[in-house]
Amino acid sequence: MRLPNHIGIIPDGNRRWAVENGMSKEKGYDTGISPGLQLLRLCKEAKIKEVTYYGFTVDNTKRPKNQRLAFTDACIKAVESILEEDVSLLVVGNTESDMFPKELLPYTKRKSFGRGGIKVNFLVNYGWEWDLNKIKEGKRSSKKITDDINSSYISRIDLIIRWGGRRRLSGFLPVQSIYSDFYVIDDYWPDFKKEHFLNALDWYNKQDVTLGG
Amino acid sequence: MRLPNHIGIIPDGNRRWAVENGMSKEKGYDTGISPGLQLLRLCKEAKIKEVTYYGFTVDNTKRPKNQRLAFTDACIKAVESILEEDVSLLVVGNTESDMFPKELLPYTKRKSFGRGGIKVNFLVNYGWEWDLNKIKEGKRSSKKITDDINSSYISRIDLIIRWGGRRRLSGFLPVQSIYSDFYVIDDYWPDFKKEHFLNALDWYNKQDVTLGG
Repeated sequence: MRLPNHIGIIPDGNRRWAVENGMSKEKGYDTGISPGLQLLRLCKEAKIKEVTYYGFTVDNTKRPKNQRLAFTDACIKAVESILEEDVSLLVVGNTESDMFPKELLPYTKRKSFGRGGIKVNFLVNYGWEWDLNKIKEGKRSSKKITDDINSSYISRIDLIIRWGGRRRLSGFLPVQSIYSDFYVIDDYWPDFKKEHFLNALDWYNKQDVTLGG
Repeated sequence: MRLPNHIGIIPDGNRRWAVENGMSKEKGYDTGISPGLQLLRLCKEAKIKEVTYYGFTVDNTKRPKNQRLAFTDACIKAVESILEEDVSLLVVGNTESDMFPKELLPYTKRKSFGRGGIKVNFLVNYGWEWDLNKIKEGKRSSKKITDDINSSYISRIDLIIRWGGRRRLSGFLPVQSIYSDFYVIDDYWPDFKKEHFLNALDWYNKQDVTLGG
């Protein structure tokens, strides 16, 4: 079976899940923490080398304050749960803004936890404009644009899986997503099932890789 | 009905169509010209304001020479057929390479034909790295990254329609595609039908617009 080296995860639908389950929107985020950990373990079992989670973005921070506080808190808890595993962790986002939680600053340089292993990237207060703006500081002599972006330590993504039915990237790592295959699951992220992941790998196995060629 | 302002078109599957119809791969490109014109007329009827066609990319030019010559020729013919219509046309791509057909140089600044109207952008020898590399020349003071890329005259895309079943962007305008809804049609581009376009608009009408918020 042909496996993706690097999987991007867009865990969407937390708020819709909360509303459909009779809760207010901001209550949906905490239910997304456990699926993240389940998915990570499945990735490790499948020998995936790198996984990137879309935590929250600069765009997201424009939402009502109670939602913002709730998803920020959920991201902190999610990262803390990940570093209990054997992983090589990197948090990527704009740390120069008040929206970046100071609790996650220690993880903005890649560090191994446990016995290390799978690379896990977690986007926190990530913005596509922030990411690309770094290119302006780049050396004109540098050959690869991928070395000049703020997210340069995140590699090209082979497969993006998005929960919650929307078929769009919503600002997710535009450079790393350029050749990615894009698999959408209609279920909301809090309703994560092992089968979602296995079906995505199965679908990916049937795609060809051309890198635009 | 909520309509997209700007539609991106990825007309994929020409080679697979040719092979399945007993022809060699490079014979598939010419059959893609007429669908392009049909689609343009449908966009005008629907009062779409801007449409961008993925002609060919820098990545594509690495294909065998007979294919390269065939798709380059088909793009020239496609552009020439478009300028018989009432349009405001712009060809975007790396003109500093030998792969850019000199026949299309006159259209690399936007120009109105007939009575003008719908903006039509046609990507010819377009490369995402070429597009983003322009940022290095940008002024650090410029606020918007969208003003600093080589394709800055192409606006944000609301809806991308891809023919040929593949669910990926393949380097298509990474900055303008950041919030785009992505609709995939399994049929090959030479098998274009009016219903494809109408179904895509219908699907788009049911999506929400959040711009990442």
